[in-house]
Amino acid sequence: MRDFLPEDVRRREYVIGRIKGVYERYGFEPLETPAVENIETLLGKYGEEGNQLIFKILKRGEHEASGQADLALRYDLTVPLARVVAQYQSKLPRIFKRYQIQPVWRADRPARGRFREFYQCDVDSLGSTSPVVEAELCAAVSDALTELGFNDFSIRINHRQLLTELLRAAGVSDELHADALVALDKLDKVGIPGVNAELTQRGVAANSRERLVDFLTAVEGSKKSAKTALAVMLALYELQDQALGIETIASAERDTARENVRAILELTTETPAGAHMVFDPFLARGLSYYTGVIMEINVADLAGSLGGGGRYDNLVGMFLGQNIPACGFSLGLERILVVMTERNMFPPTVATTPADVMIATFDVAGAGAALRLAGTLRGAGLRVFVYPDAEKIGKQIKYADSRGIPFVALLGDDEIKSGSVTVKNLAAQTQATYDQSAASAAILEALRQRG
Amino acid sequence: MRDFLPEDVRRREYVIGRIKGVYERYGFEPLETPAVENIETLLGKYGEEGNQLIFKILKRGEHEASGQADLALRYDLTVPLARVVAQYQSKLPRIFKRYQIQPVWRADRPARGRFREFYQCDVDSLGSTSPVVEAELCAAVSDALTELGFNDFSIRINHRQLLTELLRAAGVSDELHADALVALDKLDKVGIPGVNAELTQRGVAANSRERLVDFLTAVEGSKKSAKTALAVMLALYELQDQALGIETIASAERDTARENVRAILELTTETPAGAHMVFDPFLARGLSYYTGVIMEINVADLAGSLGGGGRYDNLVGMFLGQNIPACGFSLGLERILVVMTERNMFPPTVATTPADVMIATFDVAGAGAALRLAGTLRGAGLRVFVYPDAEKIGKQIKYADSRGIPFVALLGDDEIKSGSVTVKNLAAQTQATYDQSAASAAILEALRQRG
Repeated sequence: MRDFLPEDVRRREYVIGRIKGVYERYGFEPLETPAVENIETLLGKYGEEGNQLIFKILKRGEHEASGQADLALRYDLTVPLARVVAQYQSKLPRIFKRYQIQPVWRADRPARGRFREFYQCDVDSLGSTSPVVEAELCAAVSDALTELGFNDFSIRINHRQLLTELLRAAGVSDELHADALVALDKLDKVGIPGVNAELTQRGVAANSRERLVDFLTAVEGSKKSAKTALAVMLALYELQDQALGIETIASAERDTARENVRAILELTTETPAGAHMVFDPFLARGLSYYTGVIMEINVADLAGSLGGGGRYDNLVGMFLGQNIPACGFSLGLERILVVMTERNMFPPTVATTPADVMIATFDVAGAGAALRLAGTLRGAGLRVFVYPDAEKIGKQIKYADSRGIPFVALLGDDEIKSGSVTVKNLAAQTQATYDQSAASAAILEALRQRG
Repeated sequence: MRDFLPEDVRRREYVIGRIKGVYERYGFEPLETPAVENIETLLGKYGEEGNQLIFKILKRGEHEASGQADLALRYDLTVPLARVVAQYQSKLPRIFKRYQIQPVWRADRPARGRFREFYQCDVDSLGSTSPVVEAELCAAVSDALTELGFNDFSIRINHRQLLTELLRAAGVSDELHADALVALDKLDKVGIPGVNAELTQRGVAANSRERLVDFLTAVEGSKKSAKTALAVMLALYELQDQALGIETIASAERDTARENVRAILELTTETPAGAHMVFDPFLARGLSYYTGVIMEINVADLAGSLGGGGRYDNLVGMFLGQNIPACGFSLGLERILVVMTERNMFPPTVATTPADVMIATFDVAGAGAALRLAGTLRGAGLRVFVYPDAEKIGKQIKYADSRGIPFVALLGDDEIKSGSVTVKNLAAQTQATYDQSAASAAILEALRQRG
């Protein structure tokens, strides 16, 4: 877990501010939940691996010695949202669109862009199964990334039900589906031979593997020819039906899922997400609570994803006993920051100095006058750093220079007596003396000229 | 620990934004530290009671069963700051002014304005022992509170060394000082008889108690007559010297401490804090790391404090092996919110609606056009909520009305065909049809007129 020094915080706040601005324009409302949840709320929601990565908190007081944990650190923002929706159902609107930008904690091995404490920027819609929900989510994250300066990202989309149908058609038995999905999900990293090896290792039978590999090979070929995500999807469905003889499977659910993906892809063409959509028949996403569409954002220069999401129509039901449809997207703040830093995507205004002007004092007796002047300058909106110690003026000016503070206000005995102040412009190496009441206007004007 | 629904979050963000703005104007820079610290970093820094209120995190993996804790949740923002200053000494400026607004966790019994997860708004200066530091801190928190609409707060100030001298003069043995301070700190709550009872219970001898009670009584009387904090302080020192015969105590440290408080009070008269300063010879503050001046902010209608702080010149040394002078102030966000809510101090603009305009659709086929129009309106800066389901228009409008969304854009077949949109103003109960390209200007203008 990391500390963020001032420059880091300013960059993080810049990114968060931009993302928030976009989410607000989409009519999402802010929600915050506590860092700590009851341990039962979290256990069993993230799959086996997830359970092990949860930070658990010891019971307090006399129970501490028992080693028992009753609380745990938030592992994502989706499960707390589901709890909140169940808990405050009567206070929340029927269609509830919320965003939440807060840290989560996972006892994971750290890697590039992966930390044990990291921020998720989540955006979710609850209360509707309409494909408009998914299309708007894709549009919102597209707009957010575009606003930050990204233009080369792709939003991959798939559907949990289609994955199930695919595996069934390949003859993979239901209890091996989870294993097979883990293997398929690694296609980008390990290629078709790697997936085949992993399928073998995970106990998928030879004839099923063969059919999956045939299909993988056909898909890789077809991806290059079709133009839009929708065209790719339709071509792949055809391919899948041919290669796997999927007609033999009961297909009402398959058809519903296909129609859902088709509708979403069609709607996204009316939004900023359109150009970024990619249909990926092997996208699986690790979390166990997804029930429908799943999505993931990638850029070429980051191995992991910038974000991901999907539909989870049954999660609220685990708390409420009654399902409420839900779908969401989560952007990873740290991943975004890693890429933006490497690509140098921050506007120069983000790396700001600690202050616009520093007030230097010649002796202890001048400190009162310095504080009074600081009040005047701050009243005009300037950020003012009062140097606290009456050290040699050269040393004080050097401090301002080393911190990038552009102006130093000198308050000597003469200035104090006459109510004036001498302002040094460190970059221009000029100085001028003003009446104290006129100093703020002069500094503001000089700042404007620096741009 | 609590969830914050949209309206709560907006209020919290309003307060945080105002406080941040003031701190930035004072040249403080943002810092963020992880929620979780190594447990050794926290233990032994907050006194016995503090140790027990720390949330401890179980070791992960195979160690989990051992019940051992290696990490803990942040208990305040001061100890992590001291660790950061020690850890990044070479990267930080010699005079380091930082603010930090983050949650902390204490396994405390909840009460009005007291929660197990709460936000502190901390502002600290490191690297100088000048009284300018304390004066600027008092000025910054004064400005922050004033900006939020407070005008009736007092900033009580005292000095740890003066408390020590007082107790020594009263003949309280050094090992009972901590106990005696706990008793004296309750004066406001329990009055002089209560303090006396508590002193008895904590084992302070009768003749010491008598002298303390005499002094307490004299102080209570003198408070009413003197005008400024400085005058009160000087009168009290005289009183103390008379009542307790403090001349008999070695007094170099006493004189330094008195001069320090005097200088701070004098400097504050040049700042916005001046009118709020109160010298309180019994203010003790619970935390064990304070070494010099201690401060606390109060308003009449809250039993606890809105914030507190002090000088802690030895805390960085516990991590670095070399002391760096430091002084800080912490405002309690929840306390401020409790009072602001009860006093109705939030400007009406804070309670905002989820969106400026909702787009209603008549059928599934119209969803694409709705998303396209949403993009246009958002591009003009409007916050737009697209109703996802093609329900009866009356039901959709009712939703907008219940959420306080002022405008509904209706997109029927006719509108879609002609590229127009009908905009309903729900409050005025009027509607007009615009070309889609002109709708954003019309809505923005109508919003301006509503104010």
